[in-house]
Amino acid sequence: MGSRLFHHSFFLTIPTTMATDPQFLKYVDDHQQDYIDRLAKAVAIPSVSGNLSYVKDVEAMGEWLIQQLTSLGVKAEKRAIGTHELEGQTVDLPPVVIGQIGNDPKKKTLLVYGHYDVQPALLEDGWLYPPFELTPDPNGSGRLYGRGATDDKGPVLGWLNVLEAHQAIGKELPVNLKMVFEGMEENGSVNLDKFIESEKDKFFAGVDCMCISDNYWLDTKTPCLTYGLRGINYYEIKINGPDRDLHSGVFGGTVHEPMTDLIALMSRLVTPEGQILVPGIKDLIAPVTDDERAKFEAIHFEMSDIHAAVGGDVTISDDTVATLMGRMRNPSLSLHGIEGAFSAPGSKTVIPCQVKGKFSIRLVPNLTVASVTDLVVKYVQDEFKKLGSKNKLDVYLTHGGEPWLADPNHYSYQAAHKATEAVYGQVPDYTREGGSIPVTLDFANILGLNVLLLPVGRGDDGAHSTNEKIDTDNYIRGTKLLGSYMYELAAAKP
Amino acid sequence: MGSRLFHHSFFLTIPTTMATDPQFLKYVDDHQQDYIDRLAKAVAIPSVSGNLSYVKDVEAMGEWLIQQLTSLGVKAEKRAIGTHELEGQTVDLPPVVIGQIGNDPKKKTLLVYGHYDVQPALLEDGWLYPPFELTPDPNGSGRLYGRGATDDKGPVLGWLNVLEAHQAIGKELPVNLKMVFEGMEENGSVNLDKFIESEKDKFFAGVDCMCISDNYWLDTKTPCLTYGLRGINYYEIKINGPDRDLHSGVFGGTVHEPMTDLIALMSRLVTPEGQILVPGIKDLIAPVTDDERAKFEAIHFEMSDIHAAVGGDVTISDDTVATLMGRMRNPSLSLHGIEGAFSAPGSKTVIPCQVKGKFSIRLVPNLTVASVTDLVVKYVQDEFKKLGSKNKLDVYLTHGGEPWLADPNHYSYQAAHKATEAVYGQVPDYTREGGSIPVTLDFANILGLNVLLLPVGRGDDGAHSTNEKIDTDNYIRGTKLLGSYMYELAAAKP
Repeated sequence: MGSRLFHHSFFLTIPTTMATDPQFLKYVDDHQQDYIDRLAKAVAIPSVSGNLSYVKDVEAMGEWLIQQLTSLGVKAEKRAIGTHELEGQTVDLPPVVIGQIGNDPKKKTLLVYGHYDVQPALLEDGWLYPPFELTPDPNGSGRLYGRGATDDKGPVLGWLNVLEAHQAIGKELPVNLKMVFEGMEENGSVNLDKFIESEKDKFFAGVDCMCISDNYWLDTKTPCLTYGLRGINYYEIKINGPDRDLHSGVFGGTVHEPMTDLIALMSRLVTPEGQILVPGIKDLIAPVTDDERAKFEAIHFEMSDIHAAVGGDVTISDDTVATLMGRMRNPSLSLHGIEGAFSAPGSKTVIPCQVKGKFSIRLVPNLTVASVTDLVVKYVQDEFKKLGSKNKLDVYLTHGGEPWLADPNHYSYQAAHKATEAVYGQVPDYTREGGSIPVTLDFANILGLNVLLLPVGRGDDGAHSTNEKIDTDNYIRGTKLLGSYMYELAAAKP
Repeated sequence: MGSRLFHHSFFLTIPTTMATDPQFLKYVDDHQQDYIDRLAKAVAIPSVSGNLSYVKDVEAMGEWLIQQLTSLGVKAEKRAIGTHELEGQTVDLPPVVIGQIGNDPKKKTLLVYGHYDVQPALLEDGWLYPPFELTPDPNGSGRLYGRGATDDKGPVLGWLNVLEAHQAIGKELPVNLKMVFEGMEENGSVNLDKFIESEKDKFFAGVDCMCISDNYWLDTKTPCLTYGLRGINYYEIKINGPDRDLHSGVFGGTVHEPMTDLIALMSRLVTPEGQILVPGIKDLIAPVTDDERAKFEAIHFEMSDIHAAVGGDVTISDDTVATLMGRMRNPSLSLHGIEGAFSAPGSKTVIPCQVKGKFSIRLVPNLTVASVTDLVVKYVQDEFKKLGSKNKLDVYLTHGGEPWLADPNHYSYQAAHKATEAVYGQVPDYTREGGSIPVTLDFANILGLNVLLLPVGRGDDGAHSTNEKIDTDNYIRGTKLLGSYMYELAAAKP
């Protein structure tokens, strides 16, 4: 286990590595309040991308970002990427903000991604403070409450803070830095893939590796580097029976009921212990390597962590490694719900005429969207035949995303590992995320880059929830982490 | 099969029996348009009991009914029966309208029930014509479109038409008539049971038998008498797992998911062929008697009827008697839906933390609410234990209603049988309804009466649907049927 010497201390100077410029670190320590003020300005712009009434605010947030970047010496600009439908209206997509600073062929070129839009937030949803006013916890915990504080304005501003420090101390960055910030991450990153594709040999040319700070530590204590994401295949099983909803008093006992067929099929997908019942999927999973197992065994994780996170002891396993691998390394199948059946409170004696069961399978190497879909469709069709129902079945993928796995021994990861040790005095956990972050795959696959996911916030930051927060310590150390990572990267031997 | 001589003829005189006063029948034939005009006035009052904005209209409909009854020589009054909650407001329940005409101790006393409230209806729901304007089909089919035309204003007005005819021809009714009309049938008949109980030895004293016209022919061609209703037990299976909804990316594969448990349990309740899997229920069903079987075999019914009614060949059986018994005589179990799971269009990768599966079982003699509930609760609990889940189960009855079966050989049924033969020239089908009509049980059980369900409308009238209608032929013949039934009843020997 790494040292936790500095865990509960805020506003303290911390040890440096050889690589990182000590003036940079000192500047960060001396300007913590300035950095918090900058974050307050960013949080005050309610850049909610999923809501028509905030379209201007998202735009304003993009402009603010360009103005900030420009004042910090970055050649920044916005790029229009088309339109989309929002609440029935066609509106411009929030522009992609790109920036570049440094163009020294002797330096490595680092690409950084972040997003300047946020999830919706309303005080009446249960926020302690107005969500678009960054509010320090009056109890002195160091928590800074506000929508976007950790997802993803805090991490994005970490890079701006790094730039400000270097401008102030009159030092060039140790790497060439390219930045790409989008305003649609919380609403599907529409057209970002096309933008990456179109700029592959232009703006993105010459990039050596990439860093994204848009996920979180596994717990509240241990910094981590994230090198994998599960993919997802989302399916619907549609059963059509009668051509109208029927009254169960009148027709119950006479017709094949679509719900009965659907529930029978859904019950054959996964066991209560989480074992996927679709034949063939297990055989496709890549065997666990020794290196992988070692990384899972080294993760700082206790069963009490997950019990606290889910609010109850409902874990399938009592073993930490099995639980972590269940989350990060193995496929899982979840039954999400049924469209078309009665779902309101109360009682309704309906026989729904068409129902759609929804489930998804999380993908891990070497499962692919296509191979799993072939197996699922065939299995569900075969099981339906066994039911002997006169209803009609349709089973199909609604969307799919491949799993992603980076090389965690790449020099970019090694640089982040060293920076973490230097800034936090702890060895980072090597984690994978159970969920998908589609932009990661877009960048990794289209640009052919090693992507490092380097979280700034903690596991309890509550991204997407009420009372989202970032800890002051994580925000300030996160700024140092990003800066130190640059220095370690510059020193690394590919 | 009965004669269908008169099926497609409207506005025709039809043969009489010995019992029925020919002047009455002639008056009905001569005043068809007056009767349609009366129905138009009733339909024009939008007496929707389930909607706060129609409270005054329901009240107005009750007043209109009292005024009509009074002008026809009935001693009519309204009775307040308390208050209820409607859309968050406490409002008076629509009054019960009671009326009495005739008090001759030498005559039988018939109790008639109907309701003057209706289901909601909006033109934009897909009505061909404004729902509160009675509109004859311009194609000349004889259909009279309008909300309440068949459910239940047409049948209620049938009785008023009978009274008007007798007033006009200067004849007393052959029976003493007591009437009870409620304004809350479409919204739960709140407090009607208490009213019946409280008036058992007052208004309802001395009643010999009862007739309710609030259901429909099985098909569009054959009049019927209905002597049974299935009961219903409605259940919820509640599974609690984590204390908050979880993201399937983060927690899929690590926790016992409530949906997985629920779907497993729901899949063990009923087969796709409709066989109830709860042990013990089958053993409680009363054996089929020869008389019962004969009545089912005599019903005019073809598989094409049900295929048309449900919009597709999705029947479990291809046999008419098996299908009819499946609907009327056997229990059935329908899975209605799930509360708490994802139910909207689109994709959501949620692991719901609490889900409630809803299902109901239709009850037939000798199943009781209590005996079936004991079996269901034990079975679901036992099956849950087999799952080995750490989640929590609760399974409970949300409401129950006993089945009802009248003696179809009672003199009231015999009277209705003769009246049907006289008015329609057809032997009536003896049917049961698959669904429940709770007021039937209240009257039958509290007052200890034989209740005859004597439908006026056809199987395609679309009660509760858009474009509800009554056929002119059924409305006019229905008036004759109700009148003739009175005469046959008066002549019957108990």
